[in-house]
Amino acid sequence: MTMKLYCFGESGNAYKAALALELSGLDWEPVKVDFFNGETRSQAYRETVNEMGEAPVLVDGDTRLSQSGVIQMYVSEKSGQFNGESPQDAREVMRWVLWDNHKLSSQAGMTRFLMNFLPKDKRPAEVIAFSQGRLAAAYKVLNTHLTGRDWIVGTGITNADISCCGYLFYPEPFGFDRKDWPEIDRWLSNIEGLDGWKHPYDLMPGSPEDRV
Amino acid sequence: MTMKLYCFGESGNAYKAALALELSGLDWEPVKVDFFNGETRSQAYRETVNEMGEAPVLVDGDTRLSQSGVIQMYVSEKSGQFNGESPQDAREVMRWVLWDNHKLSSQAGMTRFLMNFLPKDKRPAEVIAFSQGRLAAAYKVLNTHLTGRDWIVGTGITNADISCCGYLFYPEPFGFDRKDWPEIDRWLSNIEGLDGWKHPYDLMPGSPEDRV
Repeated sequence: MTMKLYCFGESGNAYKAALALELSGLDWEPVKVDFFNGETRSQAYRETVNEMGEAPVLVDGDTRLSQSGVIQMYVSEKSGQFNGESPQDAREVMRWVLWDNHKLSSQAGMTRFLMNFLPKDKRPAEVIAFSQGRLAAAYKVLNTHLTGRDWIVGTGITNADISCCGYLFYPEPFGFDRKDWPEIDRWLSNIEGLDGWKHPYDLMPGSPEDRV
Repeated sequence: MTMKLYCFGESGNAYKAALALELSGLDWEPVKVDFFNGETRSQAYRETVNEMGEAPVLVDGDTRLSQSGVIQMYVSEKSGQFNGESPQDAREVMRWVLWDNHKLSSQAGMTRFLMNFLPKDKRPAEVIAFSQGRLAAAYKVLNTHLTGRDWIVGTGITNADISCCGYLFYPEPFGFDRKDWPEIDRWLSNIEGLDGWKHPYDLMPGSPEDRV
């Protein structure tokens, strides 16, 4: 049975799940979540899709999973890919997935939302500046780690890369410029060069253009 | 060999690792990290202990792990505890660990730091208010989930509980009051009632009193 991923193009967290599915070669299809009209915040969504009120959600027969990191782990279990080559690698992959959830994607996603998807007069300047400061510290950690490496863990793409790149291909400004971080820039080019790689707006339904 | 946990009492993220170790019965000892004098931000710490510039870090012989969620997983591997009773449970545990890292502890830890450990004239009021709003949404998700349950996943304590409670026992104000969230309050009492449970300031070295 084809797996269904509840997602929308603007979500970097959904992109992590969609990219893992797409690169794995497993059979999947997207189901568009109408985030911008409040679908994830509705009582119906919380009760029938995800109590956390978030996307992505993966449905595979009777299995229903949320949190991009869990969906990525599940894709690894089913496909045997993206989790490194040893238990040590797997722990290192999870270390970067957790770091990304805590320090990188969580801040990048929020900052991009505040700067681009809120009405101009509702954008909290102090919060945006503060988050950009925290993000710069995170970019520095990642850029330093990637020095002399093609991938975050080991010699090929893992869930660590798929998680950390989640928000970094989007065109909307949130204080990240690839030119400022040459090691991150090179690593993102490695990801873009993979067979089957797609940009978030080409991989999932929904984009700012649809809403103009 | 006794495992060493680099930690300090004020860190709820370190507490998650320390509490998992303590409740597991494994042999461990704390090594105090002098966070408040800048140890985690030093070049030496980044180069020799953790490139992410964070605590906790667990050292077990040649194995060195960071990110509280990874250390919790490692404690589960070694002790056979806290990861539920099936692969489905394990995925549900990881779902809540990731949610906690993304939405609950990350925000609670930062907000508590800004409100208590920064000089009064450096506390960013707009950031604090914004974070408290996000936290209230997270408390609501957790409180709703705990209705009719003693534990987040299954019928006993797991890493999901150990992760989500990380900042909720601390006395310093950050906008969380157990009385406002009766299901969370009851669940925290379940955790406090476990054999071997200790408060963060009793389990790890370092507390605000030491710094007065």
